[in-house]
Amino acid sequence: MLVTKHQNTIDNAVKANHERTFYSQYPEHPKAYGEDAHAKGVQSYQQMLNKPFKQLLQTGETGWIGEEVSPYTREVLGVTYPSFTVNDLLKKAAVAGKGWANTPVAERAGILTETLERIKDFFFDIANATMHTTGQSFMMSFQASGPHANDRALEAIATGYHELKRYPSQLLWEKPMGKTSIKLEKTFKAIPKGTGVVIGCSTFPVWNTLPGVYADLITGNPVIVKPHPKAILPIAIAVSAIQQTLQDNGYDPNLCQLAADSSEQLIAKELCEHPDVRLIDYTGGSTFGNYVESLPGKTVFTEKAGVNSVILDSVKDLDAVIQNLAFSVSLYSGQMCTAPQNFFIPEQGVTTDNGQVSFNDVVQKFKDAIVALVNHPKMGAGTLGAIQNENTLTRAKEAHQLGGKVILEGTPVVNEEYGNARVCAPTVLEVSSADNNIYEKELFGPVVLIIKTRDTDHTIQLAKQMALKYGAITCGAYTTDAAVKEKIAEEMNNVFTPVSFNLTGFIWVNQHAAFSDFHVTGGNPAGNASFTNQEFIVKRFVWVGNRELVE
Amino acid sequence: MLVTKHQNTIDNAVKANHERTFYSQYPEHPKAYGEDAHAKGVQSYQQMLNKPFKQLLQTGETGWIGEEVSPYTREVLGVTYPSFTVNDLLKKAAVAGKGWANTPVAERAGILTETLERIKDFFFDIANATMHTTGQSFMMSFQASGPHANDRALEAIATGYHELKRYPSQLLWEKPMGKTSIKLEKTFKAIPKGTGVVIGCSTFPVWNTLPGVYADLITGNPVIVKPHPKAILPIAIAVSAIQQTLQDNGYDPNLCQLAADSSEQLIAKELCEHPDVRLIDYTGGSTFGNYVESLPGKTVFTEKAGVNSVILDSVKDLDAVIQNLAFSVSLYSGQMCTAPQNFFIPEQGVTTDNGQVSFNDVVQKFKDAIVALVNHPKMGAGTLGAIQNENTLTRAKEAHQLGGKVILEGTPVVNEEYGNARVCAPTVLEVSSADNNIYEKELFGPVVLIIKTRDTDHTIQLAKQMALKYGAITCGAYTTDAAVKEKIAEEMNNVFTPVSFNLTGFIWVNQHAAFSDFHVTGGNPAGNASFTNQEFIVKRFVWVGNRELVE
Repeated sequence: MLVTKHQNTIDNAVKANHERTFYSQYPEHPKAYGEDAHAKGVQSYQQMLNKPFKQLLQTGETGWIGEEVSPYTREVLGVTYPSFTVNDLLKKAAVAGKGWANTPVAERAGILTETLERIKDFFFDIANATMHTTGQSFMMSFQASGPHANDRALEAIATGYHELKRYPSQLLWEKPMGKTSIKLEKTFKAIPKGTGVVIGCSTFPVWNTLPGVYADLITGNPVIVKPHPKAILPIAIAVSAIQQTLQDNGYDPNLCQLAADSSEQLIAKELCEHPDVRLIDYTGGSTFGNYVESLPGKTVFTEKAGVNSVILDSVKDLDAVIQNLAFSVSLYSGQMCTAPQNFFIPEQGVTTDNGQVSFNDVVQKFKDAIVALVNHPKMGAGTLGAIQNENTLTRAKEAHQLGGKVILEGTPVVNEEYGNARVCAPTVLEVSSADNNIYEKELFGPVVLIIKTRDTDHTIQLAKQMALKYGAITCGAYTTDAAVKEKIAEEMNNVFTPVSFNLTGFIWVNQHAAFSDFHVTGGNPAGNASFTNQEFIVKRFVWVGNRELVE
Repeated sequence: MLVTKHQNTIDNAVKANHERTFYSQYPEHPKAYGEDAHAKGVQSYQQMLNKPFKQLLQTGETGWIGEEVSPYTREVLGVTYPSFTVNDLLKKAAVAGKGWANTPVAERAGILTETLERIKDFFFDIANATMHTTGQSFMMSFQASGPHANDRALEAIATGYHELKRYPSQLLWEKPMGKTSIKLEKTFKAIPKGTGVVIGCSTFPVWNTLPGVYADLITGNPVIVKPHPKAILPIAIAVSAIQQTLQDNGYDPNLCQLAADSSEQLIAKELCEHPDVRLIDYTGGSTFGNYVESLPGKTVFTEKAGVNSVILDSVKDLDAVIQNLAFSVSLYSGQMCTAPQNFFIPEQGVTTDNGQVSFNDVVQKFKDAIVALVNHPKMGAGTLGAIQNENTLTRAKEAHQLGGKVILEGTPVVNEEYGNARVCAPTVLEVSSADNNIYEKELFGPVVLIIKTRDTDHTIQLAKQMALKYGAITCGAYTTDAAVKEKIAEEMNNVFTPVSFNLTGFIWVNQHAAFSDFHVTGGNPAGNASFTNQEFIVKRFVWVGNRELVE
């Protein structure tokens, strides 16, 4: 029944995935969800504070833990979550996985799409929870953890549905042998690899988690969600919605379990190393990412650190470009894996339709645009959001000591609604192309480096080296010269980095759209996986074919 | 032009791959290739002996090497091959790969299918070369290294063609924004990962090599073929045909290079560890296989050792089953990765349509059938072929010392055509289910173990454990009970092992058909790759998407 209900949605998503034209199942405008949805969400969020989160359908907890602090109010949320032993989680996953493995993929796709519809009912609760754990603005919290995350989840469902329907489940194979023939009945099954663990991060606790969750589930694997201890609530709400939907429709809610832990007693390693865990999705720092990638006998999908470059060569309208870039670096204070960090500008400056603009003038314009944006009474605080954690704040505060010339020292910015909010304008440094020890590191947060190069060829060479050695998820490039454009595309693509050319206006290099843009290519050190290419799905199951003689 | 010429073949292959019904582009009967083809092939083979192999288009060799010995005549072939430095091979691969990466996939598919057509012209040369390097019978040499290998290669081309055509190379993405919209021109490219190395084995030097070669090439990567030093000639002929076809059609012949080495100076490690090598396909023992799988930063496809089981529970016609199994274990003296080794028989014997047959009677019938087959004047020598190398011969000769009860001691069998041929009938041992130290090892060659179990449940438990811990590529099962059949399928499939049920007559568990049977599942220790599932293709390239604002 759920299959029929959602067949159209799934078919559209499969089609969109292939055609890669604009597609969205969940509108990104909060207003699309009703006038009172926002107010209800705030209320609902506030009712969750300072009490145990009892919406999960998991039992057998060994205690209750919780340590989240709002980057806006700087107050503890006071929500506690049940904690479980790793063995208990894995036993329940195995039990739940047994029936799920034999559930036809169309049926899986139906119930999983239904869980997304249920999550939709909690978009505003999740948005408020995201805001007060990640420091994102309300709008980003709503979009990233709500419709955009659900769209990415549907993308994983659709890709899995398509891949698992690729071969007939049963057929007659007949080989001619002279006047007679040999007949075999063949059956093909996509056998799930086993229990998956999805390890979330503190800045995008839902968006970076749902693709792995739904990729595991659509391919028949039970999944355990291990959120960052500082950003549990948003994904806990989503997991509880999934569990409730599963149970309401006769499926085992333990197909998707929450495994909250605390900073003092982290369980990610114990989970990952457990022999029953076969699949690991991870978003976060490279040290732990490289460790999970190295675990023998596991299929691992990672998104790690990288250094994203912007290549400035030539532009039509410099002001439009600078506005776009100032927003890109300020958005959520650079706490996005897609945020640009390294801005390469040739020493002779940038060619524009109105003539050459000197290096120093470009830098000055960039600085001015950032200052104007972050201090804008209506735009500033909302664009910056708040700094998620003390480490990022410290990095931002100390950035001016990194070396080079301080163009803009990141100073605290006042958020009028939340006086205590941890907000800090970007620090902008100008460094030399020889200062690779500075710009080859990911400086997660509001730190921007401007690197003076000999020319655009030099720029390309450096940006390419950065992507090859340290990883890159995005690259922005500005050029009006077709040959330069082709060279940038070829060189950056060859180190498996996508390039966004000449973005101005309401589209930024930080944004990746579901059903169209691959998020991370999987080909450079920024991560080994991609939302959602075929690998992201087909590595989670194994095709096995049986044969029987038909006499 | 080649695209048009072969479009139909490629389309049919893509269709066959999806439908998995019987399909073959290259007839497996030698007679389909003309009456005089066989004689010409023998002559052509003999003309290659005792001289340098000069058909390759590679230059810059540092010497000439060769050490092949016919398992039939026990004489050295005397063919020498050019040897090259690893750096030289990789430099040439990189140069060749540059243009190839930008060649559209349809064009690649066209020229690659053309290379298969050229290889076809050498099927009989390759067959004789295979026979006198591997010890396979002429018929197996012809089929495995000729039409079957070409079909597997075409399967890889077709799968690659399908995967790389999945997304549009260019499209307009338009996101509605109220009364206006944002328009991006998006381009998608499948960027090849880089140079591949395909390491061949001594028993199937063409069949196990071509899938990796064509998978690398169709996805845009140059490839270096590193054959086993004792089985170079068959694949050297194929590589020279590929090179000639590439050159004749204006492509760089170094897209596919031969890297012959000698037992005294093996280059496989140096090749695999070279930073320019990004893709490795390997067939052979597990020690080296596990080593290549562990190499950081490489995408690796392996087929390693495994222990294949036959589960005997109940049968209609025991004699027909025993005939089939006797042939399975004798075929090419068990030197197939798909050959069954462990025969599990319940202590109470096997149920047949004519009543229960005791354990001892089943064993006796099995022994008698093997003895009759190997000593059959017309069938024996042809079925057994010859033992490829001394290690296998020693293992076979000493097998009676492994433990358990000797049912049949493998004795030399006379090949009337080749008096010196290294031929040895299978040794059959009966061991206890507690003797897992004996039956958990792959005993490559003519060694058969009969394991007495408590009942079929016990059998399934042991066969499953073997596949899980030591790997399995095939499993044969005989049962007339639907519930038992379902249990065997479920338990073996869950350790990623395919099951062939109730095979009798002219179809054997050893055989995997291109376009229908996956060869190796990739899910257990017998190998991490599969001919040809999606993973075998999609891990060789990376999707990268660029975007540009359309104003």
